[in-house]
Parts: sequence; C-alpha cells; structure tokens
Amino acid sequence: MRLISVMFVVLLGFPAMAAEIEADVARLQAKLDTLSAYGGTDDGGLNRPAYSDADKAARAYMIAEMEALGLDVTIDAGANIIGRRAGTEAGLKPIMVGSHIDSVPFGGRYDGNTGVLAQMEMIALMNDHDITTRHPVEVVIFQNEEGGLYGSLVMSGHLKPEALSQVASSGKTIGEGITFLGGDVTALETAKRAPGSLAAFIELHIEQGAFLDEQDIDIGVVQGIVGIKWWDVTITGVANHGGTTPMRRRQDALLAASHYVDLVNRTALRMAGRQVATVGRLQAHPGAPNVIPGRVDASLEIRDLETAKIDAVFAAIQAGIPAIEAATGTSFDFRYVSAANEPALTDPRMRDIIRASAKARGYSTLDMPSGAGHDAQDMVDLGPTGMIFVPSKDGISHAPEEFTKTEDIAKGVNVLLDTVLAIDGQMDQ
Amino acid sequence: MRLISVMFVVLLGFPAMAAEIEADVARLQAKLDTLSAYGGTDDGGLNRPAYSDADKAARAYMIAEMEALGLDVTIDAGANIIGRRAGTEAGLKPIMVGSHIDSVPFGGRYDGNTGVLAQMEMIALMNDHDITTRHPVEVVIFQNEEGGLYGSLVMSGHLKPEALSQVASSGKTIGEGITFLGGDVTALETAKRAPGSLAAFIELHIEQGAFLDEQDIDIGVVQGIVGIKWWDVTITGVANHGGTTPMRRRQDALLAASHYVDLVNRTALRMAGRQVATVGRLQAHPGAPNVIPGRVDASLEIRDLETAKIDAVFAAIQAGIPAIEAATGTSFDFRYVSAANEPALTDPRMRDIIRASAKARGYSTLDMPSGAGHDAQDMVDLGPTGMIFVPSKDGISHAPEEFTKTEDIAKGVNVLLDTVLAIDGQMDQ
Repeated sequence: MRLISVMFVVLLGFPAMAAEIEADVARLQAKLDTLSAYGGTDDGGLNRPAYSDADKAARAYMIAEMEALGLDVTIDAGANIIGRRAGTEAGLKPIMVGSHIDSVPFGGRYDGNTGVLAQMEMIALMNDHDITTRHPVEVVIFQNEEGGLYGSLVMSGHLKPEALSQVASSGKTIGEGITFLGGDVTALETAKRAPGSLAAFIELHIEQGAFLDEQDIDIGVVQGIVGIKWWDVTITGVANHGGTTPMRRRQDALLAASHYVDLVNRTALRMAGRQVATVGRLQAHPGAPNVIPGRVDASLEIRDLETAKIDAVFAAIQAGIPAIEAATGTSFDFRYVSAANEPALTDPRMRDIIRASAKARGYSTLDMPSGAGHDAQDMVDLGPTGMIFVPSKDGISHAPEEFTKTEDIAKGVNVLLDTVLAIDGQMDQ
Repeated sequence: MRLISVMFVVLLGFPAMAAEIEADVARLQAKLDTLSAYGGTDDGGLNRPAYSDADKAARAYMIAEMEALGLDVTIDAGANIIGRRAGTEAGLKPIMVGSHIDSVPFGGRYDGNTGVLAQMEMIALMNDHDITTRHPVEVVIFQNEEGGLYGSLVMSGHLKPEALSQVASSGKTIGEGITFLGGDVTALETAKRAPGSLAAFIELHIEQGAFLDEQDIDIGVVQGIVGIKWWDVTITGVANHGGTTPMRRRQDALLAASHYVDLVNRTALRMAGRQVATVGRLQAHPGAPNVIPGRVDASLEIRDLETAKIDAVFAAIQAGIPAIEAATGTSFDFRYVSAANEPALTDPRMRDIIRASAKARGYSTLDMPSGAGHDAQDMVDLGPTGMIFVPSKDGISHAPEEFTKTEDIAKGVNVLLDTVLAIDGQMDQ
C-alpha cells in the first residue's frame, strides 16, 4: 500500500513538473567553483577544517547566498546555519535537508559541499518555478561534520558536555569553535530539536565509495549508515637479538601480527554481505631493524549495517587467533574501545520515495549502505530520514582527487527536489 | 699437521699445568658483583652506556684493578684501556685479549663484562702461579662496543672521521665521548695497530643466543662473526576510506606488508643453514584505525657467515614479491642501506687451539657462528683471531634477565688461559 501511494504521488501527482524542472548545471558549477575558493588548494583539493578561517569565510558566503534566495537564515546555538522557506499550511512540521561544508585537512571539494550546493539549487529551482510547499523547508549547514558530527549531535541532543573540551583539527576546542562560528555554548539546549519534530530529514552526499561509479548507476538509495566498532589490539611476543636468535626459537610479535592482518582480511572477504574490516594502525616495537619485535600495537575496525553482523565478523576473527598464538609463541589482547557509531537505518518510506523519484526521471538506482558516517545518522529520531548518494569517481574520498561530475550532481538535485515535493505531498504532519 | 702440533702443545706441553690451574669462582663472583654496581639497576640489569658517568667510574675501577695485578696500564688515543704484561722473549708480538664493559641502555650484566673479567682472572691466575709468557700479553677494554665497535675501529684504523660527530646513546658525540674517557681525538692515528702486528687476538664473550644453553654445551668455538646487510622497504598501496571501500577493491599496503613479513620468515626457515632474516621495524601510514594503509615503511636485515648466502636469501625473498604485488595491487621498493658488517671469519688455527684446550679440560664444545657483532671482527687483520663463547641462559641478551653462571664463566677462563698459553708456546712471531 505504501509503495503504491508513493508511486501515485510521484508518477501521477508531479509527472509534468518532474519533466519540466531540471537543475541548472552551469549555475551549480559556478557555485561549486566559488565555494571551492574558500580553502581550495592548488592540487584541486580543499583544506577547510571546521573552525578555520576558511570555514568561517565559506559560511559567510553561504549565508549571503541563502539570504539572496529569500531564506530566513539563523545560526543556532550549536553554530549550525539554518535557512527556512515558509510553507503554506500552518502547523505542519518542517522538511529538513542538510549537509556540511567543512572538510578534512587537505581533503576534497565534493564531500559535504555537494549536498549543500544541491539543496541550495533545489531552493533556487523552487523559486524559479514559483513552487510552494505545504510544509516549511529548512536547509541546514551542519558545523564540524568531519571532526565528529558535532553540529548534528547538538541538534539531536546527543552531544556529551565533555566533548566541548576536545580539540578539533583546527587547534580550537569544540566549544571554542562553536563560539568562533557564532554559536552559544551556554545555550546548546535551545538548538535541540525534539524527537519526531521533523516531517522528514533528507541528506544528499557523494558516495565516497565506488559502487555507483563502477556500475555506472546514477543514484544510491541509502539503506542506512553502518555501525562501527573499534578494538585496540596488543600482540606480545619476546623481543630478542635479531642476529643471535635462530628462526625456530623466535617469538616474533610482528610475524603474529602479519597472520592477524591476513586473518582479518580473509574473514571479511569470506563472509557473505558488505561488511568491511580494517587494520589501519600497526606498529612494531621496539622498532629497530636488528631486534625481533616483542610487541605490536594495532587496531581493528569492523563496519556493517547490522550490529549482529559486526559481532559475527569479530567472533570469526577471534576464532582464528589461538592458532596464530600457538604457531608463533605470542599472545593477543583485544580491548573493545567503543562503538564509534551504532548502525542508523534510514526510513523505508524515504527509500521508496527516493527510489521512485529517481526512476520517474529515468535514472538507475542502487540500494546500498553508507560505509561512512553522516549527519543524517543523528537525525533518525527527529523524523523519517533518507539519504541520496551521487557517484564518486573511482570511489576516492578525503583526498584532492575526490571528484563528482556536475551533471551527476544535477541528477541528484532533481531527485532531491522531487523527493521533497513527494514528501510534502504525502506527509500530513 | 697443524692440529697434531697443537694437540702436542696442549696435551703434552701443559697437561700438568692445565690440570692444576683453575679459575677462582669466588674471586670471579666478587669482581662481577663489584663491577655490576657501576650502573647496576634494581631489576638485576645494567644501565652503563658508553660515555655515561657510570661508564667512566667503572673504567676507573678497572684501571685500579689492572694496576693491582701489576699490568702496565695505558689509555690509547681512542680511549681504549690497555693493560700490558711483559713477555720474556724480545721481539715477539703481543697476544691480545679484549672485550668491553659498556652496556646497551638498560641491558644486562654479562655482555662484555664477562670477557673483561675473564681476562682479568686469567692474568690473576698467571700471577698466582708465576707463569711467564714468551710473548707480551695485552688485555684490552674497548670503549663503546655497543654503540658501534668504536674502540676496536680506532685500533684497526677503520673508523671513518665523520663517525666522530655521531651522537651516542649517552647524548655525547663519539668525539666528545672519547675525550670524556681520556682519549685524544686529534691523535687517533697513534692508537692504530698495524695489520699483522699481533701474535693473536682472542675475545671471550657470552653467546647471546641459546645454542649452548639448550644443548648444555660448555664452550662455543666461534667460526666467525656473521655479515649483516640492511634494506629499507617501502610498500605503496592506496590509502582509502575504511568504511566505503569494499574488501575486494582495496589496495592495502598493510595486507601486502603482512604477506612480506611471512615471506621473509618462511624463506629464512626453509633454506638450509643458520642464516637469520628479521623485519624489526614496520609502521603503517597514515595509521588511523579507519583508513586503509596507503604506505608501509619496514626494514629487512639478513645475517650469515657468508655474503653469498645473505645474497641468496635476499634473492629468494625478491622472487616472492611480484606475487604479493599482484595479489594486493601494491608495489614494493627495496633500498639497500649498507652492509652493517662484512662477515669476519676467525682463524682456523685459533679455533683448533680453543677446541683442543676445552677438550683437554673435559669440556664439551660446539663450533658456531656469532650472530652478534663483536670487537673481534675488527681485529682479524691485526693477527689470527679467535673467539670463545660461554652459555647465556635461555639466550636472553641486552635485557636485565641476561645471565651466565659464574661456574660457566670459570670454565671459559680456564679455556682462555690454556688458549693463550698454547698460542704463546706455538707462535714464534
């Protein structure tokens, strides 16, 4: 029933409109070029970490752009920028669309910015075509997404007070950064949105992976943002003289670590599904070329849409450890650090609307998880949440080579517009 | 013929003496305890790096001990301490016996000190029993063995001038350290001994490995000091997002490095012989738990008594690299750093004398390579060189747990004495 009603709205409610209204590729490109100048690097990348001068300047530019589009712009106490477009029916909750413009240090120009520029183009198209919505539409630029989703954590009320004293990559603490950007750390409660207070939340983002690019698919329908669990791993052997200790007498922590890295990779590859497992940090101690390593410090990260799957991957890795310990005369210690993120599933209604909106445009779609974290994951309690992915060339992310064709962003804008209008037509709260 | 003449000297020339003269275990133990107090640590270890105050104080104690034994003590320009006992025949070259008393930072009490105390006990026994030798006997305490054999490099004339500006673990440069210990960096040439200027050179040392201890063997007859070659290894993959990059699309430099570490171990184990190959240094970059490593920096060290064997091990490792590169989408770069040491073979005549001396005492012997470097390796051009190993408990070296029983050292002293006397009887230069 649900799907049929959505199809009705999309295919019968707005078919003429969908065919007529198209994102303006040249306008998108111009805005992208202008925004990229704030913190842009000579190699085509972007160095605009949250709370940097470039971040502040880019936000000022975006505020001016939002005001030029007629939006009612406010900065909430958490330093998120909110541009509101009024709806026609009193009492309806806002439809929120949001992303970010801060970058990792020396990252790329498309992560976050693509979503923010898409939502601005969506508003421009609404203005161009005199579209009114029943619900208010709010476009949001969350602050400091890359550092840890701080803006959306404030809005969802999930920010822990001690987080304000953590130091961001800019060198400022989170608290100092919020003040620097015009927020008010003494009034963060006022920025909090209540659970269920949104008609919907939608984020458009580049995929940061290669599923869409590899298969030449236009639109990713995000099933959810994967959960992440982290462990610190210590492998203990016996440090000894690399010249006087025969091969068969060694208790080499690095040899054991090598078998561990291989085990992690084989386990994640062997199991069905899209889970990923990564050993990103590994160092041998004491680290001299002529000393057999007595200790190795390493990491383990496992991601999946289901916590049970994460736990199953970890259990399978654990099952392989005793054989490594026995073969190398070493011992392993896994210390659970944290669940960096719980899995955050998107709302099935939102997925249906996004998928149907894309198909009505003739775009190909793929239902897929998001392996990366996004502000959207903090919004799932505030209202039905959906995410739209556009392709990333070769899946490159957080690097100057990050790239998405403006034509592909335009397709995302079209789907975003149709999705918001479908939500507006369908949701009566 | 050579063996027969040696056997004649040892078995017929000094059999009564060998049976009568035994190292004084209590005296050895007392000297070991006293010497260990200079830089001794509460855990039973020793922290007496070259050029430290503890090193200087221990040297002053040893000089006093040498003078008490009637030796003519000098400090050469390279800061080596030389105690000379006159011979009875004019024109004969000296028989030199030498080792060191500096330690690695937070090392053990037996490395070096065992040889120095053994040669002092040998002199004490000669005095006790009114033994005169035809050749002069010189006992040497080389300075800064652990930092890079600096004392013996000065004596052999192999020290490169630029080495004087290198910083030792004490914080002083080698040049400053030599001055600190009473040497004269402006006159290092005067400390140089000419090739062929020694009747023989003998060093007694703990094994630093477990061959003797494991097989309960009294005396190791050192065949030579292994050569060492070093390489820096860089493995290049593609750093990427640990959440959004599927397992099968990764070009994980750490996974490749793991296969490399395993290959090095398997290669060294598989080939016949006593070669060793070690990856002691390995670090993944950028090193974040959520980023697939794009680069790994590692080391490779291979040791063997024969350079050709070292090269064969390296070639076998190289042969396995293309398969790893192909399987992981990475590339390896091996940069030859240096031959830290060329192999230094001991003189077969010295091995025969040491072996025969031990057997005449009823001690078991094992011919074996030295996997560690020693001052003896710098002396091979100055005269026929031999090395005597005594057992190391569990092969532990460069750690506070390093241990050799005083009774085992005493056996070494007895062999050292008989060896020097056999050389004195046999060598007519």
